[in-house]
Amino acid sequence: MSSLPTTEPTIDDIHAAAKRIRTAIAPTPLLTSPALDEQVGARILIKPECLQPTGSFKIRGVTNFIAQLDPAARSAGIVAYSSGNHAQAVAASARLAGIDATIIMPADAPPIKLANTKAYGAEIVTYDRYSESREELGAALARQRGATLLPPYDHPWTIAGQGTAGLELMAQAKAIGAEPDAVLVCCGGGGLTAGMAMAIKDTRPQTEIYSIEPANFDDTARSLSAGKRLSIEPGQRSICDALLGPMPGVLTFPILRRLLAGGLTVTDDQALAAMVYAFKTLKLVVEPGGAVALAAVLSGRLDCRGKTIAVVLSGGNVEPSLLCAALADVAAT
Amino acid sequence: MSSLPTTEPTIDDIHAAAKRIRTAIAPTPLLTSPALDEQVGARILIKPECLQPTGSFKIRGVTNFIAQLDPAARSAGIVAYSSGNHAQAVAASARLAGIDATIIMPADAPPIKLANTKAYGAEIVTYDRYSESREELGAALARQRGATLLPPYDHPWTIAGQGTAGLELMAQAKAIGAEPDAVLVCCGGGGLTAGMAMAIKDTRPQTEIYSIEPANFDDTARSLSAGKRLSIEPGQRSICDALLGPMPGVLTFPILRRLLAGGLTVTDDQALAAMVYAFKTLKLVVEPGGAVALAAVLSGRLDCRGKTIAVVLSGGNVEPSLLCAALADVAAT
Repeated sequence: MSSLPTTEPTIDDIHAAAKRIRTAIAPTPLLTSPALDEQVGARILIKPECLQPTGSFKIRGVTNFIAQLDPAARSAGIVAYSSGNHAQAVAASARLAGIDATIIMPADAPPIKLANTKAYGAEIVTYDRYSESREELGAALARQRGATLLPPYDHPWTIAGQGTAGLELMAQAKAIGAEPDAVLVCCGGGGLTAGMAMAIKDTRPQTEIYSIEPANFDDTARSLSAGKRLSIEPGQRSICDALLGPMPGVLTFPILRRLLAGGLTVTDDQALAAMVYAFKTLKLVVEPGGAVALAAVLSGRLDCRGKTIAVVLSGGNVEPSLLCAALADVAAT
Repeated sequence: MSSLPTTEPTIDDIHAAAKRIRTAIAPTPLLTSPALDEQVGARILIKPECLQPTGSFKIRGVTNFIAQLDPAARSAGIVAYSSGNHAQAVAASARLAGIDATIIMPADAPPIKLANTKAYGAEIVTYDRYSESREELGAALARQRGATLLPPYDHPWTIAGQGTAGLELMAQAKAIGAEPDAVLVCCGGGGLTAGMAMAIKDTRPQTEIYSIEPANFDDTARSLSAGKRLSIEPGQRSICDALLGPMPGVLTFPILRRLLAGGLTVTDDQALAAMVYAFKTLKLVVEPGGAVALAAVLSGRLDCRGKTIAVVLSGGNVEPSLLCAALADVAAT
C-alpha cells in the first residue's frame, strides 16, 4: 500500500476535491426561510448537508478519500471508526466502489446509524465509547488486515473533501447576492469546520467562522481560547452523538486556530429545540448534532441582528423516536 | 373592485408570474437521491415544494395573485377557503402585503395548519367539510365584505403562479443534463398540475405529465378517463387532507385533459409509506398529500425503470403525531 499524505491540505486540494467528487455527489442547495429571518432579525443562509446521500456531509470527505486510493489499497479494503455518520458514508462509498469496508462503531450509536451502515454491506465491529479507544482499535484492525484506515476528520483528503461544502456555499451565496458576515459550523473533530473555513476564508477573508459544539463537548471552544489542543473531561454525555469527539484533531486544530473567530456552545435542549424548529418550519430532518449551528442562531447565542449568517445543518440521521419525543415535549409545553 | 380574469392562463402569464414572484420567493432546489434511484431503478428528480415558505407550493399562486390586486381591492381585504396549505399561504402573504385576510377552513383540518394560519394573523372561520360548501361560504363572505376571493386553484392567476414550479423544474433539470420522461404531480383541484403541465409541455412537449391522487379522491383520474368533470362519491375519507377536492376545476380540467398522459392513484398506506421514506432517506418533512407522487414511484404504480422521472413533493405541513405514528408503525413491522 502506498503511503498517504499527513500534512494540512491546501486550497488547491479543496478545489481538486470539488472536481473529483462532482460526478458522484450533487451540490446541496443553499436555502432561505423568511420565517427564520423574521424570527432572528437577520438574513440566514441554510446549507442543508442532511440532504446528502447517507444523510450527512461525511460523504464529501469519504468520496474524495476513496477516489485517491490506488488499486492495491482498494483491494485490501478500508477500515473506519465512527459514531455513525462517517460510518454510513464509508459503507455506502465502499459499496459503490466495490471495496470491502469494516466499521468500528460505538455500541450505543443510534440504532438507525448502525442499521443503515449494516444495510450498505459493511462489516461492523462495536466498542464501548467510554472505555475503549477507537483510534487504537482502528489502527490495530487496519494493520492486521493490511487495510487503509479512513480517519473521520484528521486527514488532508478528508478535510479537503469537507471543504467543498464551503466552496459551494460561497458560490451559492454570491449567486443570490448574499455576503455572509459569519458562517456557523457544527464541530466534532473539526474536519468540516477546518475544510469549510479554508474554502470560505479563501473566497472572502472578512467572513467570520465559528465552530458550534454541545456545551459538554466544548473541546474546540476551550482549545481555541487556550491556544492549544485540550480534551474534554472524561464521562461527559450529550444528545449530539455526532459531535462527541474528545479533542480537536492534530491536523484540524492549527487550521481552526488560524482561521476561526471563535468557538460557541449550545445546550442539548437548545439543540433539540433547533431540531424541532427545522422539522416544523424548515421541513428538514436534522439530527441534534446537525442542529447546533441553527441552535446558536435561534437561542441568541450569537447576535445575528442585521447580519447575513450562514448555518450548516451537518446531518439528518436522527432516531425517529428521539425526534418524536422532542416534538411531543414541545406540543406539551 | 376591478373585475378579475376568468379564462385559462397562457404560457406568457406563467413567465410573467415567475418574474412577479421572483423577489418574494426563492426557487426550491431540484434534488436527487442515489438511494432512491437505486431502489426504483430510475433517475428520480425531486422537486421539494415542502421547502417553500409556509411549507407548500401554494405560496406561488397566492403571491402571484396578490401582486396583481389594485389598491382598492387590497384595502378591502381578501377571503379564501382552504384545507390548510392555501390558507397558510394566503395568511402569510396577506400579512406581508398588509392586507386583511379571512380564511374559511374545515373544522377537521390538521391542528398544525389551523394554528399556523392563525399565527400569521388571519381571521379563521371553520366549516364542516362533509356537509357545507366552502365555495358558497367563501363567495357569501367575500360579497358581504366587498373582499376579493382567492380561489385555491380555479383562477388564471393561481394556476399561472403554480406553473412557475414547472418552469423552475425544467430549467434545473436542463442544468444537470436531465430530460424528464415524465413528471408526477400531486393533484387536488388541479391548479399545480395544470400550471406545471403548461410550463413543462411548453419546454419539452414529449414529457408526460401524470396527476397523482389518493385512491378515494380519484376525481381527476376518473374525469380524465371519462373526458368530462366527474366528482367523487360523497362521504369519502383519506389521510391526504391536502387533496380532498371533490372535482377538477372548471378552468383546470380542460388544461389537464389537453396536456396530461393520465391520472394515477395511490392508497393512503402508500402515501404514508412514501412520507416515512422521505423522512428517513431524503431527510425531508412531507405531508401525506405531498407524498403521493413519490408514492406512485415507490409503489411501482408507475413503471419508472430506466427512465428519468420528476416527482413533486407538494407540501410538508404534516401533524407531528401523524408522522410519528407512521414512523412507529414502520419500526414495529
